[in-house]
Amino acid sequence: MASTKDRILDGSLELFNTKGIQAVTTNHIADHLKISTGNLYYHYRSKDHIIQALFERIDLAAREVMAPLPTPITPQQWAQVFVHGMNIVRRYRFFFANIVELAGRDKLLASQFRALTGWTLDWTIDAIDALIAQGSMRELAGDDRRRLAENVFIIIWNWTGFTVAFRGHELSHEGDTREGVLHSMLPLMPYFKPKFARDVRAAIDNAKVFGQERSFLAEP
Amino acid sequence: MASTKDRILDGSLELFNTKGIQAVTTNHIADHLKISTGNLYYHYRSKDHIIQALFERIDLAAREVMAPLPTPITPQQWAQVFVHGMNIVRRYRFFFANIVELAGRDKLLASQFRALTGWTLDWTIDAIDALIAQGSMRELAGDDRRRLAENVFIIIWNWTGFTVAFRGHELSHEGDTREGVLHSMLPLMPYFKPKFARDVRAAIDNAKVFGQERSFLAEP
Repeated sequence: MASTKDRILDGSLELFNTKGIQAVTTNHIADHLKISTGNLYYHYRSKDHIIQALFERIDLAAREVMAPLPTPITPQQWAQVFVHGMNIVRRYRFFFANIVELAGRDKLLASQFRALTGWTLDWTIDAIDALIAQGSMRELAGDDRRRLAENVFIIIWNWTGFTVAFRGHELSHEGDTREGVLHSMLPLMPYFKPKFARDVRAAIDNAKVFGQERSFLAEP
Repeated sequence: MASTKDRILDGSLELFNTKGIQAVTTNHIADHLKISTGNLYYHYRSKDHIIQALFERIDLAAREVMAPLPTPITPQQWAQVFVHGMNIVRRYRFFFANIVELAGRDKLLASQFRALTGWTLDWTIDAIDALIAQGSMRELAGDDRRRLAENVFIIIWNWTGFTVAFRGHELSHEGDTREGVLHSMLPLMPYFKPKFARDVRAAIDNAKVFGQERSFLAEP
């Protein structure tokens, strides 16, 4: 049985993702969960506190996905990082779609998000260096490694927003998720050695890409 | 002397960009411009109508930037499209930072934005084909051309949001703008022939990247 705190977070996440942060009040969340607002406020004093708790889940999930990789990094492991990363963003898409507004009104959250971005970028640049060192990727100018890592993040973060705004539907099926993984890998592909590139591409094509976020949930 | 309509749009744009859409009401806009709310409502009945009119400016600016290119496309012309594109997004950054929310609550705007995205992507794919045909770029698998074009757009649209959320400041200086142009060109760079790649890079390094949106403004 999920704790009330977890139920509040799961219910809030569902409402934020489907109706948008602005349209959802703590009253809506309490109604949705069939609990009293008093009970909700006992656990979370405001919508911002719920968003803060959801960010902590994102942070935890990112730490699980971006644990140190054993070397040599296999094409399958590398592809899985992207699949898991895309699924975190898909699961918490309200957060990434509203990051500018959220960062603007909550300075603590803004600094925590900057910290998350900082270490995930550093992790990615280290991984690129490891791929170069093991001969899976060709050398890159120093500044371009960072630009490449930033581009990968910009694409992963904004893929769900792109599909909603451009395709006009929620990122709710496997095809969109796999496309997002392919898009986010594409900036790196020309730098991979041919065999590694083929194996990464095959790993994405064959991966079960949808719903892989389950292991990162606070499960009942 | 700018018309009242243009003054309302310019003032609204400034407030939306600096304070966020949610925080700005039509009263704030009227106060900011030292006009009565009656006068404001005479020109625009609601905040959504102002946003609609600002979108029309974005659409017009995109049509100016993405006019048919004379062939062969020079590296300098190609770089300039990206400089101008980045400046449109920088100038109307509130719009791109809130596109998911805006598309969610305004179906007309959502369909207009999808149309804009559709033809700008088609324009880009055609331009990639022209660059391949003129020998400036190597062949690409069909699906990857579209993915590449979409990645370029995702990076341009979200660069200002990335800098605000990650660097913690508004995109207000030349360095950030030039970095955005470099980032948005990077996905294409490995596919350019070496001389074209060097010349595009030099054109970005030497371009006056900041404030080039002026020609797209409704000028006084």
